[in-house]
Amino acid sequence: MIAQEDVRLRVTLHYDGTRYHGWQLQPSAPTVQGEVERIVARLTGGPRTVLASGRTDRGVHATGQVISLLVPRTWTAERFRRALNALLPDDIWAADAAEVPPDFHPRYDARERTYVYRVGSAPQAASPFARPWCWPLSDALDLSLLAEATTRIPGERSFKAFARAGQPERGDRCHVTRAVWQRWALGQELVIAADRFLHHMVRYLVGTLVDVSRGRRPLADLDALLAGGPGVSTSPPAPPSGLVLAHVRYEGEPAPDPVALALPFTSSTGVV
Amino acid sequence: MIAQEDVRLRVTLHYDGTRYHGWQLQPSAPTVQGEVERIVARLTGGPRTVLASGRTDRGVHATGQVISLLVPRTWTAERFRRALNALLPDDIWAADAAEVPPDFHPRYDARERTYVYRVGSAPQAASPFARPWCWPLSDALDLSLLAEATTRIPGERSFKAFARAGQPERGDRCHVTRAVWQRWALGQELVIAADRFLHHMVRYLVGTLVDVSRGRRPLADLDALLAGGPGVSTSPPAPPSGLVLAHVRYEGEPAPDPVALALPFTSSTGVV
Repeated sequence: MIAQEDVRLRVTLHYDGTRYHGWQLQPSAPTVQGEVERIVARLTGGPRTVLASGRTDRGVHATGQVISLLVPRTWTAERFRRALNALLPDDIWAADAAEVPPDFHPRYDARERTYVYRVGSAPQAASPFARPWCWPLSDALDLSLLAEATTRIPGERSFKAFARAGQPERGDRCHVTRAVWQRWALGQELVIAADRFLHHMVRYLVGTLVDVSRGRRPLADLDALLAGGPGVSTSPPAPPSGLVLAHVRYEGEPAPDPVALALPFTSSTGVV
Repeated sequence: MIAQEDVRLRVTLHYDGTRYHGWQLQPSAPTVQGEVERIVARLTGGPRTVLASGRTDRGVHATGQVISLLVPRTWTAERFRRALNALLPDDIWAADAAEVPPDFHPRYDARERTYVYRVGSAPQAASPFARPWCWPLSDALDLSLLAEATTRIPGERSFKAFARAGQPERGDRCHVTRAVWQRWALGQELVIAADRFLHHMVRYLVGTLVDVSRGRRPLADLDALLAGGPGVSTSPPAPPSGLVLAHVRYEGEPAPDPVALALPFTSSTGVV
């Protein structure tokens, strides 16, 4: 039930996931939801549930996590955003806030999620100014093979082979609407969009794509995995540090420009 | 005394200074020197002093801190660098290492230091992916005034007005050989080089330059401060988060390309 004096806000969050056990509340580990709900309770005078577009796993980052919550109508969206930012820890930041209809649900209403996975190929990717948000690789990648392999991914099919065991009830079909690599200052980043993602799906895809493009396994393995054939398994999942939930799209909104999805400090220079 | 079986190494360090009380060893606070000497002792079997090109203050970062130490000749420079990186905390990284003559001293032999100070003017500068390494400003800066004011700084003179009280014995004259602003993804960064810097000098200069260029005080104040006239004081020092020790130049080495001094992830696009 929504109190008449409440208003629903939609807020976009950035977070550095390094020190969190993911988005979702846990009784005895730091989570992003836990931090946000703690501050919301302080601002509104009591506990309130904060909804999100989806969970992110331990160590995964966000620049486009969409959350929603009810606040007393005495707050404007922008004042609430500023108050949140004044109290949240430095690794969580509310980028924007807007009033939305009371029935808005950031998860059920989402039409498309976009993740960015950043691979570091330059030696400086191991620097403390880059490593927290990438997967530093010492092997050279065959970039044309990487691009070629990635063209196999878009489409609607089961991605069960690229998921951790024990998926939720909604089945394993996903419609990947975009998968493309672009350059950043110290390497390459995959921009991948889909209506939904299975658990660890981007990380398994990237682990396998990287192994193919550094010559550790044939491209045919990727095709077999995408076809759901038996007897082939993915490479280990790529580490969470490289993964960013970059955008969530809702009905009537345009698809984002991939270059604009780069972390605020990177210099994407277009498609590889 | 140098044991015959020892060899002197020169190592370039990157560090995220956020959680450190500066470079210099302190008995009861985490410092970069403390962390490095602890790991060096583990690798070489006993305590060894690590020399540096200079101190950096609490919260200040580096991508070009030059250190030097003696290690047993059984190590090659590259093997020692890799061993350091395997054991150092994630916020300190050895970018390169080379054998140097036994009498090399990173402080006394330095000819020029270059610092970068990053100001964030875009709203995203407050994001956790940018804020740790910049000074996010909400006021608009007059960039042509900023550039004009900065042309007054190069030259050899006393910079006592821009130093914290209690400077060391070597006097207060510095020869600033370069001071120029360039763009980065979310704002502007000052590249400033000199033979030496006084305590907090870059931060006092930036604090004053920013106040001039956001209209809080006249350019004439900067001129008066540089001329050493009485009755004028600097603005408060800019916060340490925006400051990076980016390069130290030694005899016979070329001056660095300012664009190459950007943090590894930024996209400097040339002089403002």
